[in-house]
Amino acid sequence: MTRVAAIIGGGVIGGGWAARFLLMGWDVRVFDTDPEAERKVSEVLDRARRALPSLYEVALPPEGTLSFCATMSEAVAGAEWIQESLPERLDLKRKVFQTIQEHCDAGAVIGSSTSGFMPSELQGCATRPEQIIVAHPFVPVYLIPLVELVGSEKTPPELMERAKATLSELGMFPLQVRREVPAHIADRLLEAVWRESLWLVKDGVATTEEIDEAIRMGFGLRWGQMGLFETYRLGGGDAGMAQFLQQFGPALQWPWTKLTDVPDLDDELIGKIAAQSDAQSGAHSASELAAMRDANLVAMMRGLKIENRAVGAHLNAMDRRLRDESVDIEKPIVTVARTVPLDWGDYNGHMTEARYLHAFGNATDRFMEIIGVTDEYIATGGSFFTAETHIRHLSEAALGAPIRIETRCLLGEGKKMHLWHEMYEGDRLLATGEHMLIHVSLETRRPAPPAPQIADKLGAIAEAHAKLPSPEGIGRAVGRK
Amino acid sequence: MTRVAAIIGGGVIGGGWAARFLLMGWDVRVFDTDPEAERKVSEVLDRARRALPSLYEVALPPEGTLSFCATMSEAVAGAEWIQESLPERLDLKRKVFQTIQEHCDAGAVIGSSTSGFMPSELQGCATRPEQIIVAHPFVPVYLIPLVELVGSEKTPPELMERAKATLSELGMFPLQVRREVPAHIADRLLEAVWRESLWLVKDGVATTEEIDEAIRMGFGLRWGQMGLFETYRLGGGDAGMAQFLQQFGPALQWPWTKLTDVPDLDDELIGKIAAQSDAQSGAHSASELAAMRDANLVAMMRGLKIENRAVGAHLNAMDRRLRDESVDIEKPIVTVARTVPLDWGDYNGHMTEARYLHAFGNATDRFMEIIGVTDEYIATGGSFFTAETHIRHLSEAALGAPIRIETRCLLGEGKKMHLWHEMYEGDRLLATGEHMLIHVSLETRRPAPPAPQIADKLGAIAEAHAKLPSPEGIGRAVGRK
Repeated sequence: MTRVAAIIGGGVIGGGWAARFLLMGWDVRVFDTDPEAERKVSEVLDRARRALPSLYEVALPPEGTLSFCATMSEAVAGAEWIQESLPERLDLKRKVFQTIQEHCDAGAVIGSSTSGFMPSELQGCATRPEQIIVAHPFVPVYLIPLVELVGSEKTPPELMERAKATLSELGMFPLQVRREVPAHIADRLLEAVWRESLWLVKDGVATTEEIDEAIRMGFGLRWGQMGLFETYRLGGGDAGMAQFLQQFGPALQWPWTKLTDVPDLDDELIGKIAAQSDAQSGAHSASELAAMRDANLVAMMRGLKIENRAVGAHLNAMDRRLRDESVDIEKPIVTVARTVPLDWGDYNGHMTEARYLHAFGNATDRFMEIIGVTDEYIATGGSFFTAETHIRHLSEAALGAPIRIETRCLLGEGKKMHLWHEMYEGDRLLATGEHMLIHVSLETRRPAPPAPQIADKLGAIAEAHAKLPSPEGIGRAVGRK
Repeated sequence: MTRVAAIIGGGVIGGGWAARFLLMGWDVRVFDTDPEAERKVSEVLDRARRALPSLYEVALPPEGTLSFCATMSEAVAGAEWIQESLPERLDLKRKVFQTIQEHCDAGAVIGSSTSGFMPSELQGCATRPEQIIVAHPFVPVYLIPLVELVGSEKTPPELMERAKATLSELGMFPLQVRREVPAHIADRLLEAVWRESLWLVKDGVATTEEIDEAIRMGFGLRWGQMGLFETYRLGGGDAGMAQFLQQFGPALQWPWTKLTDVPDLDDELIGKIAAQSDAQSGAHSASELAAMRDANLVAMMRGLKIENRAVGAHLNAMDRRLRDESVDIEKPIVTVARTVPLDWGDYNGHMTEARYLHAFGNATDRFMEIIGVTDEYIATGGSFFTAETHIRHLSEAALGAPIRIETRCLLGEGKKMHLWHEMYEGDRLLATGEHMLIHVSLETRRPAPPAPQIADKLGAIAEAHAKLPSPEGIGRAVGRK
């Protein structure tokens, strides 16, 4: 049965939550009294549809159904997860939780997107306080994995575990905060930087653009992949963090004692910041900036997938979870099913040529797994290397297009494996890839026969595929029919 | 004449500076009284040699000569840039500047890597205070582009401009700080986060690992590509920053007023942090962590090159600056000269198959530029699309290997362009790529003749290349000789 999420408050945050649930196959019901809510959610959803599938090497589940509800009771009745993303006013949130709890299941999770309030504050006037937790996400909610989960003393561990499991299934990264404090973890850090940045602007030390450059050309790159402590740990060498603290502690302490006051956010400072920000970013509309941000995030996050570290390891794990493992060797085998990610484009406005071979290479990798050439097998010293490739580019693929590769084994004998890939968007043939691979010893880097169990599986598939009609376009040389 | 840099203090920072200069073709003289300095600098340099060339799509200049000097006078005599990276002790630095200035050219730039001191403090006892500026880099210095440049009232604008130009030529991103304050810009922000993080650990709200996850799964990704203000600006929609400040100002102000005290970095807190950091990262040596960090940074930064934003735009500009524009059409044309970057590897431990086509695609792009298919031409609605490709993988390429592609035009007539690429490491042929491209109208997406000036240049190269001997391996089909 399709799972149901209720989104209370349909702004940028609520819209992002709606997108996460929908694109992972949940039905979503939105309640918001703002007449603009439907438009706002749709805008966020459009961006999410473009960007979120780009993070994965596999297809996402079929999208769920989105509906907008006239009443809160309609939205929350029977929902498994209810997410509140209303303005940061405690009285408003408390009132809404009372209404929600009149109509929702007692077993549902009620998450609040609050960046500042503690769960015990939110639970204050609730009928069932144990049902309400903080689930604080980060914009863009459809791309940034982090969700801070915070419970109070009244939160049952079972509910917290269930909340973590649900968010993990959505591809998010739930981080349970050990005890409730105002602003949780991340916003304490964000506020600290915000406060210092306001001083820097107010005192004329730097403009908004200069501060952004100091971050994104500098420590922002470090933080995007290792965070704070692991980065600093490296400063201590193999002696680790204690060494770092002893060596740099005194120097670090020196500026600590200054500048911890809070600047007044008066009209003058607001005007100064706004004018600098206009000069910096005003040439782009908010929607253009959001599109750039999303493309940047996708590209960085996909880079980290290659390294399988930080957010990259998280995304790779999701790929493994989402992957369709079924194989029918009597037909061409579906070895790739995915969308064309945002970073696969080129100046001609379509999927660039090298990414065809990238996708065909992934198809070959999947085929190798199917015949047993897994990480474990490769660790024993055998693998297939591609010796020769022929690609025909028959039709273009747009970024975001759903593509599928069907693979046939034309020959699987001795050291040789001859594969034929066809790449489709729906019924449209985009490209073919013909590849000769040779089994090698990873020690000698020379051709060597595969292990018997590999040869057997490969032979069985080659035999089954020999019964299929011969593909059109096989054995071509460049420029000759 | 080779340019000379003197590095005073050869630790992680000084070593990183040495690597930047050396790998960009400068000679480097290091002075450090630490008997371990040579080993330390060599370690940093080994990492830099592996990682820095990975950032670029072109070859770096031939490496300069590294020497270790017994005296400071030997190191600084005749040097164009002198970089001090000693411990953060003002008396020590001042004394060293006096010695440096006894022996260095009056026109040299003396940069200090200090993260905390202001230039007027450093200049205090100097013979020529105007010569000393803050040039504060970020670890790893060989990868992170940011350098904070700070002068005092005594700093001549000419020297500051010269310093900026030099650092830009090194591929760094000099950010001139408008006025001197303790800890410049970035370290004010870093200290603020550090202070909050110490509280979070001390109070048991989060462990070091949880804080790192909160950063790298969350806002660290945003900051790595947009920084703080541009990220927040998006929260204000098209109304921009003023709207954001009015909307979120009150909520943001609320946690500001708390937690700005400084925790004591006593033995208990040091022990707690060190133990948590060991649990988090202790399974890896410092050198393993540094290698992971470098590979992560390379992958993220290369991702942003695709988007041509933030650090990616900076790196792309450096590619254009470093590129060899010379073309001799009487011989096969060198269309690619680069090293295999760290993110081009696979589970078989060598350059992965799709990257061969990536490099061949770059070779084709460069060839297209040479015949006049530039961004400007493409904007008029014409381009070449690849229709067909044949690749022979003849030998492996390791990550970091210097590769070169030589391109011949086999046919350049009407709508057709038939190219032959040979990829070499030194004299060793790694792969060949044979490609048929068709000129298309970007409006109709159908074949169309190129503009006359393109056809002329293409024809001239095809004619010249027709005199070259026919390449071995042409016209092959997969599995057939």
